[in-house]
Amino acid sequence: MTDGTKTPDKFTIINELARRRGFFWQSYEIYGGVSGFVTYGFLGAKLKQKIESKLRELFVSKLGILEIESPVISPSKVFEASGHVDHFKEPMVECQKCKKRFRADHLLREFAKISEAEAEKLSLKELKETMEKNEIRCPECSGTFGEPKYFLTMFKTTIGPYSEAVGYGRPEAAQGIFVEFRRLCEMAREKLPFGVIQIGHALRNEISPRQGLIRLREFTIIDLEFFFDPEESDCFLLKNVEGETLRLFLAENKLRGSEEIVEITVKEALEKGYIKAEWQAVFMALAKKLLADLGVPPEKQRFIEKLPWERAHYALQSFDQEVYVERWGWVEVSGHAYRTDYDLKRHMKFSGVDMRVFKEYEKPLEREQAFIKPLMAKLGPIFKTEAAEVAEMISGVDPCEVASSIKKDGYYMLGECKILPEHVEITRRKVKEQGKRFFPHVVEPSFGSDRLVYVALEYAYRIKDDRAILSFPRDIAPMQVGVYPLVSKDGLPEKALQVYRMLLNEGFIVEYDEAGSIGRRYARADEIGIPLGITVDYETLKDNTVTIRDRDSWKQVRTRVIDLPELLHKYFRWKANFEDLGKPFEG
Amino acid sequence: MTDGTKTPDKFTIINELARRRGFFWQSYEIYGGVSGFVTYGFLGAKLKQKIESKLRELFVSKLGILEIESPVISPSKVFEASGHVDHFKEPMVECQKCKKRFRADHLLREFAKISEAEAEKLSLKELKETMEKNEIRCPECSGTFGEPKYFLTMFKTTIGPYSEAVGYGRPEAAQGIFVEFRRLCEMAREKLPFGVIQIGHALRNEISPRQGLIRLREFTIIDLEFFFDPEESDCFLLKNVEGETLRLFLAENKLRGSEEIVEITVKEALEKGYIKAEWQAVFMALAKKLLADLGVPPEKQRFIEKLPWERAHYALQSFDQEVYVERWGWVEVSGHAYRTDYDLKRHMKFSGVDMRVFKEYEKPLEREQAFIKPLMAKLGPIFKTEAAEVAEMISGVDPCEVASSIKKDGYYMLGECKILPEHVEITRRKVKEQGKRFFPHVVEPSFGSDRLVYVALEYAYRIKDDRAILSFPRDIAPMQVGVYPLVSKDGLPEKALQVYRMLLNEGFIVEYDEAGSIGRRYARADEIGIPLGITVDYETLKDNTVTIRDRDSWKQVRTRVIDLPELLHKYFRWKANFEDLGKPFEG
Repeated sequence: MTDGTKTPDKFTIINELARRRGFFWQSYEIYGGVSGFVTYGFLGAKLKQKIESKLRELFVSKLGILEIESPVISPSKVFEASGHVDHFKEPMVECQKCKKRFRADHLLREFAKISEAEAEKLSLKELKETMEKNEIRCPECSGTFGEPKYFLTMFKTTIGPYSEAVGYGRPEAAQGIFVEFRRLCEMAREKLPFGVIQIGHALRNEISPRQGLIRLREFTIIDLEFFFDPEESDCFLLKNVEGETLRLFLAENKLRGSEEIVEITVKEALEKGYIKAEWQAVFMALAKKLLADLGVPPEKQRFIEKLPWERAHYALQSFDQEVYVERWGWVEVSGHAYRTDYDLKRHMKFSGVDMRVFKEYEKPLEREQAFIKPLMAKLGPIFKTEAAEVAEMISGVDPCEVASSIKKDGYYMLGECKILPEHVEITRRKVKEQGKRFFPHVVEPSFGSDRLVYVALEYAYRIKDDRAILSFPRDIAPMQVGVYPLVSKDGLPEKALQVYRMLLNEGFIVEYDEAGSIGRRYARADEIGIPLGITVDYETLKDNTVTIRDRDSWKQVRTRVIDLPELLHKYFRWKANFEDLGKPFEG
Repeated sequence: MTDGTKTPDKFTIINELARRRGFFWQSYEIYGGVSGFVTYGFLGAKLKQKIESKLRELFVSKLGILEIESPVISPSKVFEASGHVDHFKEPMVECQKCKKRFRADHLLREFAKISEAEAEKLSLKELKETMEKNEIRCPECSGTFGEPKYFLTMFKTTIGPYSEAVGYGRPEAAQGIFVEFRRLCEMAREKLPFGVIQIGHALRNEISPRQGLIRLREFTIIDLEFFFDPEESDCFLLKNVEGETLRLFLAENKLRGSEEIVEITVKEALEKGYIKAEWQAVFMALAKKLLADLGVPPEKQRFIEKLPWERAHYALQSFDQEVYVERWGWVEVSGHAYRTDYDLKRHMKFSGVDMRVFKEYEKPLEREQAFIKPLMAKLGPIFKTEAAEVAEMISGVDPCEVASSIKKDGYYMLGECKILPEHVEITRRKVKEQGKRFFPHVVEPSFGSDRLVYVALEYAYRIKDDRAILSFPRDIAPMQVGVYPLVSKDGLPEKALQVYRMLLNEGFIVEYDEAGSIGRRYARADEIGIPLGITVDYETLKDNTVTIRDRDSWKQVRTRVIDLPELLHKYFRWKANFEDLGKPFEG
């Protein structure tokens, strides 16, 4: 459009509808609002819960994945070990005039058309040069920017009354799983493979978030960590999904500037080595199914392989599942990272606790083995009351690792303790090995609930005869049924309320509405996506039948009140279509 | 016991069992653990979810209460308005020798047997004197304590990259409801009464928490805010529960040193004025029902009325629902506060946004009314670009309030703006009033999920023939069914796995276990509280029948595999007893 009356895009429309109808809105509005925080009203909270249930259905219950719940606040040690304290930073620039702060790489993308991939590669110095070359000024006041510097995008706080006890709000739920791996492994009776999932709030202190549900400072993350033996990495579910097609945007194509999408079955993608781990491929296929169930057609989805410098610091290979949205183009809704043994190794290093799993050999192996013996006579004077503990920790580590570290550096760091050659005795002798201890590998599918909510809304949105409809798939519709008296007199409201209460008791999510004309009530119901509307009219008083109206086709059928519970249960479990609910009826 | 071999108390036993079986444990164990944080493993997370579902069943779905979800992190303004920044503090003392910090009032309770009620009344000076008089020393090192001072028990952080943007972790979810009251009221179509609930994490930076699930720094709070018109405060649900008996420990009895419990029906408690609001009494009755459903018998519950100095700063009347637990005595599991219009008024004062609700009169009233007119000529020079906004805010406030404030103080504070007499014109004239704007009142039932989990565990715990059993009510048992091959050979495991998968597909929470003798597997199942155990034996291979074993009675029945899904659905919906599941069987 070039005549000045710009049609609002879907992002604007969805956000306006969401606010007006109470799906979600920016939190703390009465205090001017705070960027990056949203509050979900009843409809939004319900939609989000249903999306999470759908995910649990696909990824949790039937796969035997274990759901846990760990805290949002972590002691700093956890995120030092995980690498976040070092890596979870973004380049920031401050306007020298208005003092507003921005993400340097986002400015380059927005105002210099530099791709995300390019921008993420740049050092602080290169960022500065590129910003200067492109004459990037403050988008708020046209001021010039100062030196870029890194900003740690974790929320920092203090745990308890001691100022040195630094804590962080978790930017991912994954670490809450890794740090508890020992207990979780017991829970799974020490048997690989097993998966653990966590759905909960996470915090990222974004510099200047301005994309609604797409980029929040507080959001709901769904992290599934799947632990497997890298020597037995077959996925027993592969045969269920191996024929499923994935649309891959491979790193190798991205590197040569091509936007080519490879459409390929899960099986072929594994055979050609495009996807490195079977479990990862299977989770990608399930993620595609999830998004399809939320209303996103396959051709609006793709998996983009991250380039080495785009990947998180812990990933060997990683794909982002992206969905096309009108305003922002391709947007990540889930990440599929092959984290290998990075996290468990790091936590073992930082905590001194053995994070490996024992595997028995089919028959014992005979081989030479190194043994390490802590020498208490030497440890005692140095580590004092902690000597016994240090000794125990030493007994738990790999002697070869200690030997090689001592050979290389002259010492070995065990947590915070410096182990010198004279502290230990390392010997070698022949042993029969019954099995070995090893680090499981991890693949991680990770979703953002809030982004799933946004894409479900955008893909549900359509216009029919100038009327907005949210055509949610019936099983994620936040409100299932509306009950309406045709007019609010002559006993119709009383009868409608009976129907309403009956359905409430049957466990349906129902609303009762008698305000305004029936046409307006239908229009409102369409706009909030209620799949079925039940109307009580004068016929109802005579023969106890009601009409049921379909949100999408606006067709109506007539049926007996007494049959409603069973019919509706079938409908919402996809065991009946709308046409099966009654006899066609012309309103 | 006096022979030195102290029997562990239930608190110790439950915590040990919880850790060993993966219900919950102190988080971050590999880094030494952090007090006040727990991680729920699969069984604990499931138990907690089921308790929350039970609460939703009682308080949400059938009452038409609206569930929402708001952020954990809030800008400081919210908790300044709510009064938390001023009041959410605890008295702390530091040991001058070992530098450990403690809550002064807790030390007095523990070491000087001063009651909670007494200790909470003391000023810092009185605390110091009482501690000195009772010669309280550091429990860790016997050092002496310094001056008591107040410690703000909210987690503090910074939102975004500006250090002045202070944020707090919410210590309650209630404010996330109050600040959004305008939108929520729209959601409820401006009709009172309505209720809003939120279930989510909350943070309290306790000084030195040492009571497991009873006192956590991060926990799950369930805040239900019920808004009603104080002039129409009748509760339409009263008749459903008015005959229910409540056990009240009234403030008046507490004050005169009596521990008398008044057993009284809801109806009488209201008539005698013991409980001030009908809705509050109804929620208390529902809370009693909830705890009974979780396994706590009525005689182990009571409602204790808080004394004025024990009440939160916002409450006019408040009862704590307490449950008796072995180690800690009476412990609060829910609070029932009559918050009146405190919160909405405070947020209106701090934000300048009208938080009142409009009520139409049956017939219009004619009366003299005050009008306020912002004088732009005066406002402009002072408030510059914000003058229009200030003018709009002025038009929204109560002219009488402004007039009286100006009369009293010579000015009126509108948010942060000082309004002087010359900025406004206040006039009076006769008007027909169609209705009025008023503040709804609020009663709040508020639960701690984690404490509910603890009491459910303690009350489920019992010993039978030296064996520990968690006798959860069947609908909150985290694992519903165990499936076991009698022995792990001769095709029994394959058959048992078929049964297992069938039940999984039917939506049951099931585990398959073939490790160890059948007796050991039953014992383990009892200890984690699995109500039913299904055993596949040699008979099964012949006639497709299995045995079902009852956790509590250890009785067994025999039934057809094909009938299992329907029978089990009935059993878990309380529509069948164990005896209905098959023919008695002697194993």
